Amino acid sequence: MSSLERGVTFILGGARSGKSSFAEGLIEASSMDAVFLATGRAWDNEMSERIELHKARRGPNWTTIEEPLDLVGALEKVCTANSAILVDCLTLWLTNLMMGERDIEEETATFVTAISHLKGAVVLVSNEVGLGIVPENRMARAFRDHAGRLHQAVAQAATTVYFVAAGLPLKMKG
Amino acid sequence: MSSLERGVTFILGGARSGKSSFAEGLIEASSMDAVFLATGRAWDNEMSERIELHKARRGPNWTTIEEPLDLVGALEKVCTANSAILVDCLTLWLTNLMMGERDIEEETATFVTAISHLKGAVVLVSNEVGLGIVPENRMARAFRDHAGRLHQAVAQAATTVYFVAAGLPLKMKG
Amino acid sequence: MSSLERGVTFILGGARSGKSSFAEGLIEASSMDAVFLATGRAWDNEMSERIELHKARRGPNWTTIEEPLDLVGALEKVCTANSAILVDCLTLWLTNLMMGERDIEEETATFVTAISHLKGAVVLVSNEVGLGIVPENRMARAFRDHAGRLHQAVAQAATTVYFVAAGLPLKMKG
Repeated sequence: MSSLERGVTFILGGARSGKSSFAEGLIEASSMDAVFLATGRAWDNEMSERIELHKARRGPNWTTIEEPLDLVGALEKVCTANSAILVDCLTLWLTNLMMGERDIEEETATFVTAISHLKGAVVLVSNEVGLGIVPENRMARAFRDHAGRLHQAVAQAATTVYFVAAGLPLKMKG
Repeated sequence: MSSLERGVTFILGGARSGKSSFAEGLIEASSMDAVFLATGRAWDNEMSERIELHKARRGPNWTTIEEPLDLVGALEKVCTANSAILVDCLTLWLTNLMMGERDIEEETATFVTAISHLKGAVVLVSNEVGLGIVPENRMARAFRDHAGRLHQAVAQAATTVYFVAAGLPLKMKG
Repeated sequence: MSSLERGVTFILGGARSGKSSFAEGLIEASSMDAVFLATGRAWDNEMSERIELHKARRGPNWTTIEEPLDLVGALEKVCTANSAILVDCLTLWLTNLMMGERDIEEETATFVTAISHLKGAVVLVSNEVGLGIVPENRMARAFRDHAGRLHQAVAQAATTVYFVAAGLPLKMKG
């Protein structure tokens, strides 16, 4: 059985791979205070529906906060020694950073340093997007590159890393 | 060595990953009656060629049936306690359901319940399609979501799950 | 710990997955003579920058050669019993073969036979591109098919195969 550890747990997987459910299960099986940090912004109806579906699934034991850009600030504000914070997901945060024309390298470096020093448990969920054909769209290529570098840095800082496919976790580290 | 078990075996992999060959090998190494259930429709020449190539590779010991939509009916008709049925593949079935404007959630639920109760062995092959950049095409996004949910449900019902890359199987469950 | 073995090591992973760094690390941790065989052609500025970044990272202990098409010739020329050659990457080589309208099946077969007979160690890096949605572009579909078949053949010839995600290697064979 997979169980949650203090420090950083990184969960990487494809679209609809069950990575969020797996992350939620890890936190619910612990006796820690569950916090959901949503990075997604409801750009359109498709997204709004997904956000509502996820909320309904998690139920009332969770505290939900929303922060599209300043993840470090939000994490430092809510994190206690007994909290288990699920950040869902890093790829949406990256999208927000790119839309906001932030310095991705700097933001990534600051984020990775900050998560390494948090008390409690932090579970980071992200989409692997680099296993298809090279996208024709330049912006999509840049996004893919940023995501890949972010994932490498986060995996290095993490105590435990899972790759999730078809709802099944594969431990890559820890 | 991998060997075939009664119940549901689920084989997930990318395009040209060798997942069908691996599935065929599992069945051929067993002493069961090999049945190939093709879900693909020859929409174009590219597809026709692939279907013929696969047929030639399997050889004469296989019984081949074709069913683009009613997988449950086809499985229940041919499945005996000694049959090993390869369903190749679930993503083509999903495409046919979408083209036919069927209720995907209902079809998926019925399918997963049915495979859990079959005698003999069933090997389901499907394409993982959720590890690239978010597709710009709305239909492709819907397909990706349906495929991901189907894969999770099938993996939960399966006794054994493999992820195949470069012809090599990685056991995820069982 | 992962360590380099004589014969063929195959490293498959997504874009920005850390597969090249992992390959370089394997070679640097050995006491063999490090050779970098670059298959990439600088088609545009994006590519030129990547090539320069990779070069700077490797440092002065490496001999670098460039060969976009005749990999077998290049490998046979430089390979000694004490050399460890990193071929980065097979998908770029495949792109060059397709651009040059070469016979892919023949080139692939010749390549796989040749690497099986080399002295020393050869580390082959390639991009998995088959785990996204089917590309709309016919050329991209053909590329994906060629890449998948090449990866299966190379994995079969290899002593050791790793799948790399987020910088973390997963041993698939060996």
